[in-house]
Amino acid sequence: MTAFDFELHATGGNARTGVIRTPRGDIRTPAFMPVGTAATVKAMLPDSVRETGADILLGNTYHLMLRPGAERIARLGGLHRFMGWDGPILTDSGGFQVMSLSKLRKIDEDGVKFRSHIDGTEEFLSPERAMEIQRLLGSDIQMVLDECPSFSATQKQIEISLALSMRWAKRSKAAFGEQTGRACFGIVQGGTFAPLRRRSAEELIGIGFDGYAIGGLAVGEGQAVMFEVLDATVPHLPKDRPRYLMGVGKPDDLVGAVLRGIDMFDCVLPTRSGRNGQAFTRAGTLNLRNARFADDPAPLDDACSCPACARFSRGYLHHVVKAKEIIALMLLTWHNLAYYQSLMTQLRAGIAAGTVENVAAGCRAGWVEADE
Amino acid sequence: MTAFDFELHATGGNARTGVIRTPRGDIRTPAFMPVGTAATVKAMLPDSVRETGADILLGNTYHLMLRPGAERIARLGGLHRFMGWDGPILTDSGGFQVMSLSKLRKIDEDGVKFRSHIDGTEEFLSPERAMEIQRLLGSDIQMVLDECPSFSATQKQIEISLALSMRWAKRSKAAFGEQTGRACFGIVQGGTFAPLRRRSAEELIGIGFDGYAIGGLAVGEGQAVMFEVLDATVPHLPKDRPRYLMGVGKPDDLVGAVLRGIDMFDCVLPTRSGRNGQAFTRAGTLNLRNARFADDPAPLDDACSCPACARFSRGYLHHVVKAKEIIALMLLTWHNLAYYQSLMTQLRAGIAAGTVENVAAGCRAGWVEADE
Repeated sequence: MTAFDFELHATGGNARTGVIRTPRGDIRTPAFMPVGTAATVKAMLPDSVRETGADILLGNTYHLMLRPGAERIARLGGLHRFMGWDGPILTDSGGFQVMSLSKLRKIDEDGVKFRSHIDGTEEFLSPERAMEIQRLLGSDIQMVLDECPSFSATQKQIEISLALSMRWAKRSKAAFGEQTGRACFGIVQGGTFAPLRRRSAEELIGIGFDGYAIGGLAVGEGQAVMFEVLDATVPHLPKDRPRYLMGVGKPDDLVGAVLRGIDMFDCVLPTRSGRNGQAFTRAGTLNLRNARFADDPAPLDDACSCPACARFSRGYLHHVVKAKEIIALMLLTWHNLAYYQSLMTQLRAGIAAGTVENVAAGCRAGWVEADE
Repeated sequence: MTAFDFELHATGGNARTGVIRTPRGDIRTPAFMPVGTAATVKAMLPDSVRETGADILLGNTYHLMLRPGAERIARLGGLHRFMGWDGPILTDSGGFQVMSLSKLRKIDEDGVKFRSHIDGTEEFLSPERAMEIQRLLGSDIQMVLDECPSFSATQKQIEISLALSMRWAKRSKAAFGEQTGRACFGIVQGGTFAPLRRRSAEELIGIGFDGYAIGGLAVGEGQAVMFEVLDATVPHLPKDRPRYLMGVGKPDDLVGAVLRGIDMFDCVLPTRSGRNGQAFTRAGTLNLRNARFADDPAPLDDACSCPACARFSRGYLHHVVKAKEIIALMLLTWHNLAYYQSLMTQLRAGIAAGTVENVAAGCRAGWVEADE
């Protein structure tokens, strides 16, 4: 079995391009990972997700542990087989969603007790259980359990939370053990405080991980602050390991983060926005509910070859969005994922050619239309 | 441009197989037409509908006239281009859905006034307007406007309604005029009264149509009565024209109707049932909500090659149905349409081989599992 490995191919400023090798296939970086929350990228068949250019999906431990359950997925052959996706899968630890979705959380040193948002049953997640679930799922890249403090937390609160997250990171790594071909990533926390981010990075490096994520961002701090945190954090991460910015973001966020040295992203924005009638295009964001599209015979984006652009007019998309037809969710999700992947492809090519700043400027210059 | 034409290839008892030739492609008969109500077969991309084996779709005049509007579709290049389907399309006249969906109907000799179920605007449909809309849509097979009396109507009421429908049929045909490569079908009414059905068939033949539909069935009369009506009606229809049983039905209804000489069907059952978690299979009807499927690693139907059967377990389908994931609607709709098409394929092959009674018996013997 192939080992998990990261090869850096080229850099341009702080931006980098390369490939993460896994037994289930290569992941070209910078990579965008579509979110397959409950064992499905919403409104997409797995083969269609692959057609958009995705090399890897993200699965959510929190959702899968509650329904259908990690042990059940394991009995049915693991998450890849269960959801019909044979490429690599990264799973989060469940921590973020326990904090944001569940009720009656009680966090102590051991872990977090909570009630399922689906049926109210009491559940428990510890670093050891989070890693056990990810192993049962058969995840290729497993994330440590961390605590996710709110954006409004004080520096003192963040410091206490960070210390707990670092102890949990150590326990998570120990629970991960040795799994050939699979990786365990640590997660840098520390809010918007540069010294805490640096401390977190150094402690994680001390434990030793296959990759390093930056968590606790895109929670309301705004793009400028997020970029400051990246500037203060990325230099402290090892050059020879993938860097993953969790839960980010808009196309413009991705461009800025790639320029700052990020290799991996996940975000629900392309899929969720698609289900809300919003399309990301080279020309900017279009809201297909807008009546100005009712008689528009043009495709969403004439440079895009996805089914939404190849076969349908904006007039049709407007109609199916207004009529709440399922095909609207399918087509706009597909288009948005294809757009995100094409953005990654352009950035990778720009880094390889030494022109990534021009590519970034070209993308930004194109984003003039905005219906938000 | 090719003319609209019907070739009969083989018969077996009253069952027949052949092909309807249209400029947009051939329709193998007996044919099942998926319903594309509002310019989409719900939860399916047009290429996927084609992959299930469908040769022709049905579009609903009532829905399309209200939203996005026939003139708008015409401006955007016609229904085929609008909805991304280049094969033949049959459109109904809107009459049935005016009766079943709209409010404040007022029917007189001229036509029917009604209020849109979407926004309450007052609308009017006459035989002339129904045909104009279908021409604007670019429909390949256009249906006359008829009145659809309720199942509980008396013989006298049905007789009065039938007389109106026959006058409307004549006006519809005149409004259709001559459209090369396109067809106009009459609709036999007459409730469950054999003499009225016969009279209706004869009057329509007197007007002269490219095909003959049987309407007013599958409205609550039950399968036995429906089959009696077919037995009383089909012998009075010309052998050299396609026969279309409107709005039918369950797999067992289709088998029985094919044996009685029907060539074409449409029904929302496979798509609507799919969205409700129900799957039609060789072994019978399965309700994927049923907890007995939660740990079932088997495919829905191991003889089916649709994506739902090729890539996923019943356990997965149960999960996504329970979690209300969009992929559940997509996969079960696809499977059900594939199953309906495979049933038609088997029946056509059976008729061609002189073994259609055996094929029918084999299908019925297989339908043992039932979760309804």
